[in-house]
Parts: sequence; structure tokens; C-alpha cells
Amino acid sequence: MSPKKMLLIVCDGLSDRPVKSFDMKTPLQAGRKPAMDALARHGISGTMDIIGPGIIPGSDTAHLALFGFDPYKVYTGRGPIEAAGAGITLEKGDVAFRCNFGTATKNLVVTDRRAGRIKSGTAELARAVTGMKLDGVQVIFKEGSEHRGVLVFRGDGLDHRVTDVDPHQDGMILESRPMVPEARKTADALNQFVRRSAEILASHPVNLQRTKDGLHPANIILPRGAGSTKDLQPLSERYGIKCAAVAGVTLVKGICRMVGMDVPSVPGATGGLDTDYKAKAEATVKLLDSNDFVFVNVKAGDVASHDGDFSMKVNVVENIDMMLGLILKDLREDVVLGLTCDHSTPVSLKEHSADPVPLTISGGGARVDGVREFDEISAAAGALGRIRGMDLMPIMLGVADRAKKFGA
Amino acid sequence: MSPKKMLLIVCDGLSDRPVKSFDMKTPLQAGRKPAMDALARHGISGTMDIIGPGIIPGSDTAHLALFGFDPYKVYTGRGPIEAAGAGITLEKGDVAFRCNFGTATKNLVVTDRRAGRIKSGTAELARAVTGMKLDGVQVIFKEGSEHRGVLVFRGDGLDHRVTDVDPHQDGMILESRPMVPEARKTADALNQFVRRSAEILASHPVNLQRTKDGLHPANIILPRGAGSTKDLQPLSERYGIKCAAVAGVTLVKGICRMVGMDVPSVPGATGGLDTDYKAKAEATVKLLDSNDFVFVNVKAGDVASHDGDFSMKVNVVENIDMMLGLILKDLREDVVLGLTCDHSTPVSLKEHSADPVPLTISGGGARVDGVREFDEISAAAGALGRIRGMDLMPIMLGVADRAKKFGA
Repeated sequence: MSPKKMLLIVCDGLSDRPVKSFDMKTPLQAGRKPAMDALARHGISGTMDIIGPGIIPGSDTAHLALFGFDPYKVYTGRGPIEAAGAGITLEKGDVAFRCNFGTATKNLVVTDRRAGRIKSGTAELARAVTGMKLDGVQVIFKEGSEHRGVLVFRGDGLDHRVTDVDPHQDGMILESRPMVPEARKTADALNQFVRRSAEILASHPVNLQRTKDGLHPANIILPRGAGSTKDLQPLSERYGIKCAAVAGVTLVKGICRMVGMDVPSVPGATGGLDTDYKAKAEATVKLLDSNDFVFVNVKAGDVASHDGDFSMKVNVVENIDMMLGLILKDLREDVVLGLTCDHSTPVSLKEHSADPVPLTISGGGARVDGVREFDEISAAAGALGRIRGMDLMPIMLGVADRAKKFGA
Repeated sequence: MSPKKMLLIVCDGLSDRPVKSFDMKTPLQAGRKPAMDALARHGISGTMDIIGPGIIPGSDTAHLALFGFDPYKVYTGRGPIEAAGAGITLEKGDVAFRCNFGTATKNLVVTDRRAGRIKSGTAELARAVTGMKLDGVQVIFKEGSEHRGVLVFRGDGLDHRVTDVDPHQDGMILESRPMVPEARKTADALNQFVRRSAEILASHPVNLQRTKDGLHPANIILPRGAGSTKDLQPLSERYGIKCAAVAGVTLVKGICRMVGMDVPSVPGATGGLDTDYKAKAEATVKLLDSNDFVFVNVKAGDVASHDGDFSMKVNVVENIDMMLGLILKDLREDVVLGLTCDHSTPVSLKEHSADPVPLTISGGGARVDGVREFDEISAAAGALGRIRGMDLMPIMLGVADRAKKFGA
């Protein structure tokens, strides 16, 4: 028994519902996708409730489940995932927050939660507030894309169960309150941080210039979504596999880093409709040389769905199929390949839905059923049946002859 | 995203096994049912283990599961369900029992557990025993149909874990015993109640008249099936939906009331073979105007099965199909419709079985698979796969765009 390498390709939000005006077809049924269908013909198919029947997955909880973690046990808010995505390595006990740079009056009344969707200068602003110490709490602050940023508290006795400072609409900033007595220190530090950073930002050259230019100054930081990292066991330990990921979106990158994957930058992999499929294919094949498991996320289907654009989504199906064809052409060995989605995003809905996603597994010891196409309905007739997202990794490990025996 | 209304039609016990003498067909396969088949063609089908594989559901546990509750967690005996069905609003801490009026000697030896299947007079007898106080326990007693009744204890420190007084066959009544130390008070009150009520009933005019008429007096009350209400969260809170039910049988009505449904009386809806299908259809369509979720139970299939009558059951299939046709004709909007059974009741067995039931969901965001008929075998080829009863409500809520997102 020689363990096979594994490749999991997740087509973000590509799964859909039938659309009346397109002959009751889903984008997957409407698109030309010879590579995906070839996988279905040579593998075993099924459908998958990513978290559970009738539960709409977020992108974060979905990926945790796909990597084998129970999101109900390990998920404590988006802060840590954003932090990981921004390249901050969280330590045990850290508490992380998602933040916006906003615009506020001197009395801390928020007048613009996105500081005019500030495009540049946030790196300088972040450098001005990171590193401060608040009663033994060390502050790490890093800018994100546009008006976004990540705040991390490091120190003893922190607890993520505090309420948001961000008022989530224009108005007075909120006072963070502990939701449990143990979180008092964290809430106090958070309120201090917001006030201290507002003082620093008020007179920062970037903001003085913005005001001069008639732009909204980024003079307040609005933290929300506090979370702490539960002990997410790295996949290398959990499954004994060396892992890497190819992904464009910060959030997905963050989760991959949190479970111990190597996430190299792939130039051109944007996480948008303009992503460089060829570059992703090349990076994938290359990473398979030095890893046991490579994970690929392609976000474009989800993006087209959020725009409600059926034709664009069909186009994404065909682009991903082209990418898959390039990967298959260049594979140098028998690889257990899983092809699926992290959730459905029906174009008719423009948001995530609870509908299960199609799944095909081929290569290695995979059985071959009679399914001939990769789509929501064809896959449901497959020999995998209807499984849960948390079962995917164990099943792929089994097919790759990497599963563990329980008993004698 | 506009949430759709939901309609769940449960054909009680209609699911069956193939019958040799009828060409190995099930009643669903043998009947003409254009409306049911149309739903299957325009929806997604599957099979469902109401509680779990190999578990024979009771009508009570089945309906709890179909409404999304884990019967292993919330079910504590049939008493509370009968009480709810009889219109008694249980309070937290109440203990409820199913009871028979029986006939006993002066020494409390039961000679007829059903008091000659007494048809009238039990309301007067119930009034004679309800309202008594036993060491701080308030007694509520209400007659049911024929020889049946419901007993409710209300007070501090009650516990349902007591053994039955009903000997379940002719013979000396049993002394109720606590199964846990905390249930001592309840067992004592129960034994007291049985003796005190026997004294009252012995000289009651209804019984004096029955003895004069040569009928068995209803001179003893035989409690069994003690249970307490767990906090069953109303569906309105649990799922954010306004609900109503159309049902004829007391037990099913009781469960519907326990989960917070409005259960209006539908004249002609008897819960028997003679039920007025047209009246049920009209009530259903009307309730859909003012509710988000309407539940319909049709008991007749189960009744025909308990009689072991294949042809009668085929007739029920066709009657329910007629009812469904009337509903579909009058629906004024896109409704997510679920069609299924609460359990199988094979005519060959004359009782419930563990066989999974067929299920079709159509309307709203439902995908459409290749299933063309609604029966036990055709449905199993559908894209829903094999699900659990507890998953039905979440799945229907998902298809109706009423599910909740977990994560970002």
C-alpha cells in the first residue's frame, strides 16, 4: 500500500439551483466542462451538506468543515481568520478583531464607517498604532484591503467574549462590554485602544492631508467580531500530511494558514473574476511535487453569483474546467482528486444557500460509479450518497490509502 | 431573497412494503395518483428514516422528529401529548398520564380495562374527580374518547419517573413506585389518587345506572405512560414561522399544540377513513393565507393498514391524491411543498415498521431530479438521498429561503 497524494479543488459558490429562464438548468449543467465530466466518469460522485442539512455555510465555517474540523467546536468569530489571512501568526490566548478605519467627530460619533473607502495610507496609519502596550496587553495592528484592518491583543488573561465597539451604522461608538466576567480585561483594553488610537490618528499626517484634500479622515478604528484561536491542530499532525494551498481570497488564505498549510503567493490569483487560472494551475502542479495534499480555492463562481449573473457564472464554470484540464494534463502521478464546492450560491438568490453541493472523488482507490457529469443533480445519483463536509477529508484519506485502522 | 411559505403533508402510515398477492406492488405503486406524481416530477425526492435506520417510529415520536425535535431528548412518555391533545395546557413541572376508565372489584382487582368500552358518561365522571388536592398536588382530570382520559398533576417537586398503576391486563391494580428517589412524592400522590377516585366513582350516579343496566361500571381510573413536558420551543421561536395544522387525530393535534401550532377544528376531519378530504383541502389553502407554515396529517392510510386492507389503502392513496389536487389547484403563490409519511405501516404487518418513507419537496428553490413517481422505490433514486426525519424542517426552510447562515 503506497499512499497517494491528494488534491482538493473547491469551486467557491459554484453550486446552484435550476434557473427558469435558462431552461431549468444550473450554471454547472449549462456550461461546457469536459474535464469536470471526465473526473465524474472516472470517479465516484455524491452530494455534500457542508455543515448540515438546512444550514447555510459561511465561507469560513465551510472551509473549516472541509478540512475536517467541526465548526461548532472551533469557530469563535471571524477576527482570527482575518488575522491569519493578513499574515499575523496568532498565538494561543490571543484575541483578534476585524476592524474598519472610519471617520468620527471629536466626540467619537462615527460619520462614515469606511473613511470614504480609503484606498491608500492605511499602512502608515497602522504603523502609528501597532505596538502600543495597554496594562500588559500587547497590541498588534495591521492594515487590510481598502478601509479594513486587523487588531490582535496578546497577553495573559484575555477572553474574546466582548461586545463590538463598531456601532455598525453611523452614530456614537459603542463601549465594549464583557459578556462574561473573565472578559473584563479584554473589554477594558479594547476601549482604551480605540480612544488612544483615535488621539494618534487625529494628528497623523495622512489624515491632515486627507482633510486638506476634502477626503474623510481615517481617524477612528472600529473593532468587531472578536475571536480567539481554539487549538486548531495543524493538518500535518492531524492527518500526517504536508499541505499547501492555492487561494486568492484573504479569508480562505487565513483559514489555510490556521490549519498549518503553506500558502505561497501566486501572482495573478486575485480571488476575483479576473484571476489567472493558468497561473493557479501551474502553482497547483508545482506544489504537488513537494506536498502530500494541495488545496485549491477558486472564488470566481461565488463572485458571479453575488452579481446574479448566470452567463458570467457559466463562463466561470468553463474557465475552471480549463484550469482543471491544465492540471490533469500536467499531473505526473496518480493523485486522489476531490472536486467540490464550499457552498451553493444560487444566482437567483445572490447569496449563500443551504442546498448541498456536488462532489466527485477520483484516482487512487476511488470506486467508479455510473455518473457521467459533474453537476448538482447528476452527482446526487452517485455511489458516495449524501455526506457531510466534515467527512470529506477522512474519505479522501481513505481513498488515498492514508486512513488509520481502528481496531485489530 | 423573499422567503416562501411552506406546506407539509404527512400521509400517516401510507408508506408500505411490496405485497406478493398484488404483483409485488405497494399501495402507493398500485394507486392512481397524478397529483403526487406531478410533485415528484417537479421536485426533488428521497427517502427518510424518521428517527433512525431500523427504528420503528410511534406516531408521537415521528411527529416530534418531523418538526425538528430529537425525540430521544424531548420525549418522556405519551401522557403530555395526550394531555395537549385533550386541550389541557401543561405548565412546566406538570406530570401527565394517559388513563383508562376500567371496571374493578371492591378489592381493586381489574376485571375490564375498558369498562365495557364505555361510550358516554365519562365527562360527568371526570368532573367528579378533577380538582382534588393531594398533599399539595393539584389534580386535573379530563375525559378522552370512549374509555380514555388524561390525568395531570400540578405542584412543586413532581417527577414523571414512576411506574404505571394500570396492570395492562386483568388483575390487581399495581402500586406505583418511584424509579428515582425524586419521584417518591409523585408515586404517592398517584396511588392516593387512584384510591380516592375509586371511592368517588363507586357511588357515582353514572355507575349506579350502568350497573342497573347490566353494563360494566367505570369505577376505577388506570393511569400509565407518565411524562413531563420538556421545554418544547415553539416553532415560531425556533424557526421564526407562524404555523397552523390540519389534523383529525387527538394525538397529532396534541403534538401540534405542544410545538405552538394553531390547530383549528375542521368539521369533517375525523382522523378516520371517513374523513372529509375536501374540507381538509379547503382548510389547508385558507390557513396558508395567514401562516408561514401549514402542516396537514391524513390518518386514513394508517387506519387501512391496521385493518390489513390493501384495496382500502389503495383507495386512501387515491383520496389523498384528490385532496392534494384540490390544494394545488387553489394555491395562490409559490409554496415549498413537502409530501411524505410519518412512518410505514405495511398492510402485511398491520402495524408500524422501521422501513424508511418516501419524500418529495417541490417549489421555492427546490432542485428538480429525474424522479417521476411518488412511491417508496422511485423516491429512493432521487437527489435528496436518504435523510433523517429531524433534517426535514431544516431542509424545507433552506429551500424556502428561511435558513440561517452560520459563519461569514
